[in-house]
Amino acid sequence: MSKTIAINAGSSSLKWQLYAMPEEKVLAKGIIERIGLKDSISTVKFDGRAESQTLDIVDHVQAVKLLLEDLLKFGIIQDYAEITGVGHRVVAGGEYFTDSVLIDDEVLAKIEELASLAPLHNPANVDGIRAFKEILPDITSVAVFDTAFHTTLPEVAYRYPIAEKYYQDYKVRKYGAHGTSHYYVSRQAAEMLGRPVEDLKLITAHIGNGISISAIDGGKSVDTSMGFTPLAGPMMGTRSGDIDPAIIPYLVAQVPELENAADVIDVLNKESGVLGVAEASSDMRDVEAGRASGDAKMTLAFDMLVDRLKKFIGQYFAVLNGADALIFTAGIGENSDQVREAVVEGLSWFGMKLEPGKNVFGAVGDISTADSKVKVLVVPTDEELVIARDVERLKA
Amino acid sequence: MSKTIAINAGSSSLKWQLYAMPEEKVLAKGIIERIGLKDSISTVKFDGRAESQTLDIVDHVQAVKLLLEDLLKFGIIQDYAEITGVGHRVVAGGEYFTDSVLIDDEVLAKIEELASLAPLHNPANVDGIRAFKEILPDITSVAVFDTAFHTTLPEVAYRYPIAEKYYQDYKVRKYGAHGTSHYYVSRQAAEMLGRPVEDLKLITAHIGNGISISAIDGGKSVDTSMGFTPLAGPMMGTRSGDIDPAIIPYLVAQVPELENAADVIDVLNKESGVLGVAEASSDMRDVEAGRASGDAKMTLAFDMLVDRLKKFIGQYFAVLNGADALIFTAGIGENSDQVREAVVEGLSWFGMKLEPGKNVFGAVGDISTADSKVKVLVVPTDEELVIARDVERLKA
Repeated sequence: MSKTIAINAGSSSLKWQLYAMPEEKVLAKGIIERIGLKDSISTVKFDGRAESQTLDIVDHVQAVKLLLEDLLKFGIIQDYAEITGVGHRVVAGGEYFTDSVLIDDEVLAKIEELASLAPLHNPANVDGIRAFKEILPDITSVAVFDTAFHTTLPEVAYRYPIAEKYYQDYKVRKYGAHGTSHYYVSRQAAEMLGRPVEDLKLITAHIGNGISISAIDGGKSVDTSMGFTPLAGPMMGTRSGDIDPAIIPYLVAQVPELENAADVIDVLNKESGVLGVAEASSDMRDVEAGRASGDAKMTLAFDMLVDRLKKFIGQYFAVLNGADALIFTAGIGENSDQVREAVVEGLSWFGMKLEPGKNVFGAVGDISTADSKVKVLVVPTDEELVIARDVERLKA
Repeated sequence: MSKTIAINAGSSSLKWQLYAMPEEKVLAKGIIERIGLKDSISTVKFDGRAESQTLDIVDHVQAVKLLLEDLLKFGIIQDYAEITGVGHRVVAGGEYFTDSVLIDDEVLAKIEELASLAPLHNPANVDGIRAFKEILPDITSVAVFDTAFHTTLPEVAYRYPIAEKYYQDYKVRKYGAHGTSHYYVSRQAAEMLGRPVEDLKLITAHIGNGISISAIDGGKSVDTSMGFTPLAGPMMGTRSGDIDPAIIPYLVAQVPELENAADVIDVLNKESGVLGVAEASSDMRDVEAGRASGDAKMTLAFDMLVDRLKKFIGQYFAVLNGADALIFTAGIGENSDQVREAVVEGLSWFGMKLEPGKNVFGAVGDISTADSKVKVLVVPTDEELVIARDVERLKA
């Protein structure tokens, strides 16, 4: 039995999940937070237990050392040699990486070069990769790109209506994100529907704190709502999504504390979306509770989110010229029956109908009526599993 | 017989149309261009004739004097007293003006106050109003707002997913534009369909050099694609429409000649859209000719425009949860059978089907098959007529 670890490194965090492969059994998972800050926290979950410790972790190398030591300490592995592969989530693969790849020096250099497209994320991903290379230099190391699944977008979808030089010289185009999730749930949905994904038109709605919606035709992503960056698309937990771009210089000119466009984008990324409208929280559970008790701001935030989701779903019905199924996934998509109900009932004209009693908390699979022209599915996503599988696939 | 003049004043231009009312007969129309510049040009069209003259016109007062003198000179009127009303198109009415109004000092002050929402347009509109007040102080003077028809948008549609202070303190919300056009064609369409507009769900696609698409429910605008400014929505002749807002600070940081957000917005307004992609022209007739001869850039511009139009139409099918008819209007909407064909055939799943032979250049009215579930109409717009009618309606 070989063990593979899936890594999602952020600028100050490192999430990991250890699999027994090819059984795809999760042996343990954890997160190390506040890397490089005082009082870093490491949490390990295994065998129904959760162990946390607080200590100072200066960098990703130390974080990787700690997690490996913890695997030994808790008896999850007996020897580092059991770990034969590591897969790293990488946010920006640009146009260059159309699939996961074995990481060599050239690949690593390319990922660093693409940092201008994801200045907060790619350098952190590189840190995670280097840390593993240093400590476990001989294991299979694979990069799995958040953008790769969307490299099949046609030019008409990925180009922005701006001069070509901004695309050619500055690489401004739609890259999308959440690719592993859209890939995974589209395949799961095809299986649930009992039809080959090649024969299906699917709209996948990844609705978590970040939100992206994709149009998938015959298994290929043909459009997606995130854009050059993950700010684009419907409103999200703290992100505005698409707004009239002319608002940016207007706010720079009018609002004393916003000095330039980057300041405005910071507000649009961190203080907007559900949080901006609801004010008290960006968490949909709070928003739904507030809505239930008649809170006006919470109700508006809920209604605006549903409005924006419906608009993107409607868009992708147009892009695909019809769809076989709508798939809900990720935190809100999997868990909020209220959001699903509001979206689907608001789109009844499109031939979608929920089966009473099926759209409940914890539902998985088809939640539409037998005669629903367009099926509605809840499919739990599993980005870590896609990473672990890609490590297996690319092993020599 | 009374005569009413409809005025559309830009910063360096003044378009006008003279009506005999209530017969709604166009007696003459014209445009004065390059006001305040050397070699201003005034063109008057009447009785199948077109008269042009080049001279220096320093301001809007002089422009109005010239057009009135020309009306006498060409025998279109015998006496200024025949003109009993003037209607002025005003771009930004904010939330304040929900209908056309008789202009008094208070109204004029309010229009000036709203200039922050349309810094290029409202001051020019005010210049036009003042010029008529000075020369014909006693006639009925009415302001017709481009935004008024969209003041029925629900909060869920007009609010952006940003903190409420930006709406309350800085007035950032969706105002929309082309209101008189969406109003007019929705009423015309209802008449053509032989049904009261109150019973209809309509999607009106005003596709000219500027493009806006509206969702009209029971005669009221419930959503529209232009936003805080006319930059938002699908790509247009020279405007990008919606793009990932994060592109703006990226371009400021990367492109030497773009120093701030306002520079980028200028590019997005003037050098983008069809022009940005096609490069050689923003005119759809050129683009269609280029496409016919296999030009790659022209073909991409055409395909991207159609893609963006389909997406907004799909959105509004979602907002309305179905529609009775799709209406094409304005320069491209009325004249490009190629754009209409590509859009409607790309949305066949929605239940729209063109009647062979009906979707031709010059078509007016229903161009869909008898069994088309959603009707497709071509309705020539007439914003000037709406202005003239509003003057009549508001006359004491």
